[in-house]
Amino acid sequence: MSAQNPTETPLDTSEDMVKGRLGALSGTKVTLSIDAMGGDRGPAAVVAGISRSVSKNDKVDFILHGDAEELIKLVRKKKNLVDRVEIRDAQGIVSMDEKPSQAMRRTDTSMRSAIDAVKNGEAQACVSCGNTGALMATSMIRLRKIEGVNRPAIACLWPSRNPQGFNVMLDVGADIRADARDLLQYAMMGASYARNGLGLERPRIGLLNVGTEEHKGRAEIKEAQELIAASAHIGEFDYEGFVEGSDIPGDRVDVIVTDGFTGNIALKTGEGTAKLVGDFLKEAFKATPLSRIAALLALTSLRRLQKRIDPRRVNGGVFLGLRGTVVKSHGSADATGVSAAIKLAYELAASGFSDRLAARVASAAAAAQTEQ
Amino acid sequence: MSAQNPTETPLDTSEDMVKGRLGALSGTKVTLSIDAMGGDRGPAAVVAGISRSVSKNDKVDFILHGDAEELIKLVRKKKNLVDRVEIRDAQGIVSMDEKPSQAMRRTDTSMRSAIDAVKNGEAQACVSCGNTGALMATSMIRLRKIEGVNRPAIACLWPSRNPQGFNVMLDVGADIRADARDLLQYAMMGASYARNGLGLERPRIGLLNVGTEEHKGRAEIKEAQELIAASAHIGEFDYEGFVEGSDIPGDRVDVIVTDGFTGNIALKTGEGTAKLVGDFLKEAFKATPLSRIAALLALTSLRRLQKRIDPRRVNGGVFLGLRGTVVKSHGSADATGVSAAIKLAYELAASGFSDRLAARVASAAAAAQTEQ
Repeated sequence: MSAQNPTETPLDTSEDMVKGRLGALSGTKVTLSIDAMGGDRGPAAVVAGISRSVSKNDKVDFILHGDAEELIKLVRKKKNLVDRVEIRDAQGIVSMDEKPSQAMRRTDTSMRSAIDAVKNGEAQACVSCGNTGALMATSMIRLRKIEGVNRPAIACLWPSRNPQGFNVMLDVGADIRADARDLLQYAMMGASYARNGLGLERPRIGLLNVGTEEHKGRAEIKEAQELIAASAHIGEFDYEGFVEGSDIPGDRVDVIVTDGFTGNIALKTGEGTAKLVGDFLKEAFKATPLSRIAALLALTSLRRLQKRIDPRRVNGGVFLGLRGTVVKSHGSADATGVSAAIKLAYELAASGFSDRLAARVASAAAAAQTEQ
Repeated sequence: MSAQNPTETPLDTSEDMVKGRLGALSGTKVTLSIDAMGGDRGPAAVVAGISRSVSKNDKVDFILHGDAEELIKLVRKKKNLVDRVEIRDAQGIVSMDEKPSQAMRRTDTSMRSAIDAVKNGEAQACVSCGNTGALMATSMIRLRKIEGVNRPAIACLWPSRNPQGFNVMLDVGADIRADARDLLQYAMMGASYARNGLGLERPRIGLLNVGTEEHKGRAEIKEAQELIAASAHIGEFDYEGFVEGSDIPGDRVDVIVTDGFTGNIALKTGEGTAKLVGDFLKEAFKATPLSRIAALLALTSLRRLQKRIDPRRVNGGVFLGLRGTVVKSHGSADATGVSAAIKLAYELAASGFSDRLAARVASAAAAAQTEQ
């Protein structure tokens, strides 16, 4: 790469490199910036999640943004949070039904304050349970997009039959539109995330469609098919062609690429279906005295099953394509869910994922330029 | 309704009314036309499914289309099929990856022969496990669309938390496009199906979107929202607004309306997720000696659970908007799956659903005309 390659200084101040990025890359302590407000269960669930994370990981500190008075009370109740949490007062709360265009203009919110701590290099990643659209809009104007990315995406992890236990799907809701070039960028970013987040050297990519036959599907998807196949060697992934909804939890591919409308509906359909089956299972075990005894005998096995499919354990959509790491936790996340999102944010921050992704996108863009 | 209202004679020959439709409407025996070829498991699975249906229902006869020599051998092995099955030789087989535009032009296929038996009034409904696109294309040119319907749709039943046990979703793959007026027709047809198929007097309709807030979603969905809300009184349904993927198996609505691209992906994602959870559950019960004992104790309850979520038991997408009933069984359906599709086809044929739907669409169109 040449000296003027923008990806070598992905953030706009050299201070960031010293205080934040280099710290994360060398494996020392990580500081995470947490938006305590805006989730369905309020700041108590967030603080409980932080406490749970602190008890498992001694390399993570927190900056907590929200109503200082309320947060001080909550933090004081958790003894393990002494010296691990810094509180930043931010009185504004972004509500779940607030328009993103409106929310991103407010300067007093806990969401904005949490993102700014990443922008300023005080923290290496941000976590929020708040309004997804507002979080993306605010992240875009505060952190800005990586050079070469048109539409950032939200990637989620999905329990699967693959050895790594999860597949990556994106976009699951950052933008309801995506043209062929956007889908190509999702493939590049999804491959990078699978490599860094799931440890897959050469991820297998699939493009979500209604059928695996060549003649099916929308025009932009057929065009994206060509672009992604042609970029497999630059992106260091294998392109496996079209996949269907049934492949999302399958083992044919590791990364599923789709637009944010379809991805969001698939994600919520999967979550809803898993929850339905789980609830039916509970009912089945309560049906007869014999089945209640059976449930007791199978307790350990059933807990293991629950752990495998519990959406709270894979909680956290990662925003890809921004100059900084933002993890969107489920709005209704409880302490377990918040703690899972924090774990994900920690791992991404500690591995310097944001910079690696930027470098990958830049080198792919450069290679494409050279080839043309 | 006036005498020249086309819905009073929904099929183009009066012979149909005498031989087919009136028979079904008066609750006598029903004849179903079955495409024996083209499914992933071949005609053996289809014949096994028919045999299973015959053992449960003495009011149904069959016309079976495909390679006569092979079918005669298979039918002879099932004693209960004597006098219940008529075989029609059709040598052509539509393959799973054949282009619909090509398949619909072939006159020698078992698929075409099966549809024609409905067209000619010899049977009151058709069932096929074959290529969905080809089945829809052939059904459209042979049976033709109901007056007032632009795009026919495929509706599926989805296990849900509602008292009726299932929700209706459409379109799940007839057409990858749908504009606002198509989505309105899907709402009308879905309501009619829920009324006749699930016995719901006033079904609750939801429009699938990425969020329940008014400002989210694509333009055609917002437009459809207005149209559907305005037609609720004509269609005799309650419009509940936008729903999300998690509502598909939920109890907020009974009918979920979406385009065929999104619906197909949601359907396959849900099926794939349910199967994944089921497989994980089996593994959990095999994990330890204790859990194996537990599985034995809970056997009855687990079987009940399996029955509730088994996709084979709700097998059968119904084509809506055609002058005749066509049920698309899953390509990989086994005897249980085929039998479930036959049961659905029987119930729809016996209730005269196809004519009722045509009358509903016509009266809605007439009412809209009057109001304008």
